[in-house]
Formats: sequence, structure tokens, C-alpha cells
Amino acid sequence: MGHDMLMLGVDAGGTSTRAVLTTAQGECVGYGVGGRGNPIAVGPDRAADGVLDAVALALAPSARTLSEVEVVTAAMAGQRAEDGAGGWLLDRLEAEGFSGRLTFESDLMATYSSGSVEPFGYAIVAGTGASAVRISDGAIEATADGLGWLLGDRGSGFWIGHRVARAVVRDLDHAGPATALTDAVLEHLGIAADATRREGRPRTLERLVESLYAARPIELAALAPLAFMIDDPVAERILRRAGEHLADSLVAVLTGPGPLVVGGSVLSRSGPVRDAFVQRLGTAAALDLLPVVDGAVGAGLLALRAGGAAVSSETLAMLRKTVARFR
Amino acid sequence: MGHDMLMLGVDAGGTSTRAVLTTAQGECVGYGVGGRGNPIAVGPDRAADGVLDAVALALAPSARTLSEVEVVTAAMAGQRAEDGAGGWLLDRLEAEGFSGRLTFESDLMATYSSGSVEPFGYAIVAGTGASAVRISDGAIEATADGLGWLLGDRGSGFWIGHRVARAVVRDLDHAGPATALTDAVLEHLGIAADATRREGRPRTLERLVESLYAARPIELAALAPLAFMIDDPVAERILRRAGEHLADSLVAVLTGPGPLVVGGSVLSRSGPVRDAFVQRLGTAAALDLLPVVDGAVGAGLLALRAGGAAVSSETLAMLRKTVARFR
Repeated sequence: MGHDMLMLGVDAGGTSTRAVLTTAQGECVGYGVGGRGNPIAVGPDRAADGVLDAVALALAPSARTLSEVEVVTAAMAGQRAEDGAGGWLLDRLEAEGFSGRLTFESDLMATYSSGSVEPFGYAIVAGTGASAVRISDGAIEATADGLGWLLGDRGSGFWIGHRVARAVVRDLDHAGPATALTDAVLEHLGIAADATRREGRPRTLERLVESLYAARPIELAALAPLAFMIDDPVAERILRRAGEHLADSLVAVLTGPGPLVVGGSVLSRSGPVRDAFVQRLGTAAALDLLPVVDGAVGAGLLALRAGGAAVSSETLAMLRKTVARFR
Repeated sequence: MGHDMLMLGVDAGGTSTRAVLTTAQGECVGYGVGGRGNPIAVGPDRAADGVLDAVALALAPSARTLSEVEVVTAAMAGQRAEDGAGGWLLDRLEAEGFSGRLTFESDLMATYSSGSVEPFGYAIVAGTGASAVRISDGAIEATADGLGWLLGDRGSGFWIGHRVARAVVRDLDHAGPATALTDAVLEHLGIAADATRREGRPRTLERLVESLYAARPIELAALAPLAFMIDDPVAERILRRAGEHLADSLVAVLTGPGPLVVGGSVLSRSGPVRDAFVQRLGTAAALDLLPVVDGAVGAGLLALRAGGAAVSSETLAMLRKTVARFR
């Protein structure tokens, strides 16, 4: 068993990188987590660190080395094989003894593959960002949204957090309804209430605005969980609207029946987002919903495919079960 | 006449700084424009450069020096006398011979004072940002919006430009109506149409998204003029909605009749924004609308007040007329 074929699937997301070491039969023999692994987000050096850390941890339990790995498949947003731009990662892998093949896949393809091996189907991912894709012949055929926090990602964690921030600011500015989100956000940010006013405006509002502009805009996504935690009509309206936006994105790529893989924290929780999502989909909701944690299993599956291994739903089931042992 | 009392009003805006040199009678004897003068936006050194450049140009025509100026009143967002934080500017003025008094005012107070000397009234400014204020006893008593591009500024140039960008992105993503804004924005950004697709998405959309994220978010305000130039239902809807938001901000501070000073480029043009603004105000639109170019005249007027000069509507008329000679 020491010399069977090994593949590595890498799922490099916005906050961490996961690596799955698998045999050709889909048995996970190692799993590791590293820092952020997308060079677009953190630059090539830090991204390679994130990937290599995850890979090293995945190799450790079986005491294997990179020289024994035939294929590494790295799934991440915005990096594709056709770009021929994987040098930032290949050089580092080769420096560690890797002499196999490196392939890139979309992170959305990895999410889909965590839930299904069908050649036709859909994936919707709503984490910090949000997008929906249609898979056909094992490749992405259509994409909706995923346009980033400034231009799209409607219904995403950022979108929800941004709406939360604006609702609180409008509450304090007496330009919108009072909401329990206000106290929650102020407490979350460590801002003490201060009723004194300057130019007719409470100091609390000034401090909140300063605090929110001091961070990068994308960090507003950190306010999204507050909307899920609080029972409040304003919060519920935001969450329902998010669910509707996500349904609209999915409908934009929908052409016929198929499995629907659902990734990311926003749709994984029961509550107003998912309720509104399902309601908005209506009859289209007859889709087979397959929730997945992330794209780690799928990255492993894509690595198996890239290595020429036969991949069936049994392979996926085996990989899911054996990856679960490690986390 | 060589030794009459002189005051300097400085209006430091988002893109340039204007200085008005005035006699105690409100006769402008010099006017100058410099670079950006707000230390929050560009740091204290560059801001002081912007102010000093404008001041030097204002002194030039009459060959006066800063040592002859009794009061400098600097109007800008976020700097107020009570902050006691004017050292960045006072030191530089004193280095040029100034031995008088430096006072700070809100930029909104300067805009108001460009249009009215009444102790009670309103100002609404919609340029890159947007806010409305109520003036009472010659000071700002209530403020609505002005919360910046990420959290508010509804109806502002940024708000319009952001909506334009999103409408175009949604058009190209087939997630919203077709709009003539699309060709206009692509041409404005120098992006050639490219119908080839990747993952079901036109390359044109990818390039547009890259281009928009490469700039600072606030630069989306540069797309706002396209909405004014193009006859298109999507553009008109955006502009009308901007006008409604601006009316809502004004209504939030409205308590009774008074002059309404209107500043900034968004409301200064006739068309859908102003039409929707006036319609939304309804009966409240019986307000006396006073359009002003900027806060330069008002800064001069505030400098006169700070210097103890008597200020009447005749003083304002004189200052407006004599400033106009210089620009």
C-alpha cells in the first residue's frame, strides 16, 4: 500500500485553505488546513504558504511526501489552467519534491463536486460572496453574479452585513426604523452609547461611522451573523431579501432539472434566508438540494478525475466519509 | 485704502480649494483656487499646500500679504473649531506672516452662507457626497445623511455612479434590463466589446469588473455624468431615485419655512433628479430654492462674521457680485 497512486485536492477559499490527500479509490488518507491560499487576495507568496501548509498537514498522518503525489488540483476563484499562470504554486511544490501534474479548477466547480458527480447540475455558494453556476459536461457552462462586494454578490454575507450596517446607521440618523440590530452592532464593535450631539447628530453615530470606515469594506461581512442571531423585523427583512436575491441568481442559470449543491454559511442555516430562497424558487425548488460544507471533498474528487481515476457516486461517498474522519 | 481690514474665506472641497479675500464691506479683492485642502482626505501637508496655494493667488491681484489679514475662516468637512486641531494650517499661515485669527466652519455652513444670511434655513449639497442640514441661529442644528459612500450619501454623485456601474454589470450579466448606459460606460472606460465567453460569461463583463475594482470605489462617481447625458429609461430611473433620496434627506431636517440653499452638481442641473426632488417634496417645495456654485462666497461671508463685520443680505449680494468678477 506504500506505493499506490496518490492525489491531492486543494480548496483555497477566502479565509483558509484545505488539502485532501486521497488514494485512487477515493480514500482520504490525510487532511490539512492552511491560511488563505488565493494569490489574487493575498499575493503569490502568502498564497503559496497557505497551500503548502495545508499540504504538509495532509501528508503528515501517512508520512507520505510530495514526490509520491501524481496530481495536485487546486480549486480557487479566478485561477484557471488556461491562464497558464500557476508558476507561483508549481515552483513551491517542486521545491518540496513534487514532480507530478498541477491543475487548476474554479472554486465553484469544487463546491459542486463536493455534492455531486453528475455531469449536469447547479451550485450556489453564498459565503462572503455569492454566485450560482450551471455545470454541464463536468464544466461551468453559465455563471450568475459573483461580481464582488462593490458590484454584486447579492444575498452574500457581505451583502447582509452591509445592509445591517446601513440599517443601524439609518436608525441612529432617524432615517429608518428602530432595530435591535443597533445595540448588537454597537456592542460587537465595542462602541459605547453616547447621546450627546454635534450638529444635531448623536456622537454614537459619528463613532460608528468612523469605526466602519476604518476597516476594509469587505469586513462588513462580519456583521452578517448578527442578523441571524437577532429576532427583529429589520433583520428578518434583510435576510429574506438575501434569500430572494440568491434565488434570482440561481434562476438566471437554470435550464432544467439537476442536483443543486449549496455551499457557504448563508444558505446552510435554516431560517429566513433559506425560507425565502425556497419560496422564491417555487416549483423550481423541486431541485434536489445537497448542502456541502466547502469544496475540500470536491477538490479531492477533481484531483482524482485529473489523475484519470474512475469517479462514481460511490467514490464521492467514500471520499466524504473518509474526509469527515479528519475534521 | 491700503490698510483697511481684510478677511480670507477658504472653502476646501473634495477636489479643490477656493480662497476669497474680502474687505469688511464684502468687496472681494482677490480670489484663488488651489488643490485639495482637507487634511482628512489628503493628509495635513498636502491639505495645507492646497489652502496656501489658493490663499497666495487670492492675495496676488491686490499685492497684499497675509500679515494684513485679520481673520482666516476655513470651511471644510470634519474640521471644527472645537476640535482645536487646526495646527496643521495655522503653523503654515503664520510661517507666511499671518498673525490674525484662524477659525473653522463646516463646509455645509459655507454652502448655506453662499446663498443666504438668514439665521434659519436649510442647505442641501449633492456632489460626490450628499447631505442636508438645518441652520438655526447661524449654526447647524440638524444633519441628515452625509454618511459617506459606503453607508449613505444617497442620491449623491457616487450613489448615481455606483447605480450606473451596477446597472451595466447586470445588463452584461443578463440579470437586468438592457441599457444604453452599457455602451457609454464601456467607451468611457476604454473597454472594447468582446463577445467571447468564459464559463458562460462575456469577456467584456470580466474586463469591466476588473477595471472597476482596480480604481478606488469613490471613483465610481465619475460615471454619474453619463446618466445625465444619456436618454435611457434605466438612467432616468436612477436619476429620479436620486432626487427622491435627496428630498427624503431634506425632509428629515425640515421643521418650518426658510430659505433652501442648493449646492453641488447633482441638483444644479435641470432634469430627472431635480424634477423628482421637487415632486417628492410636494408642498414642502414652497421653499425658496437658492442654487449656489460652491461655498466660496459663504466662506468669505463667514470670515466677515468671524471678524465682527456687520453682515446683511446686501453684504452677501456685494460679495457674490465681486467674487463673480474673478471667476
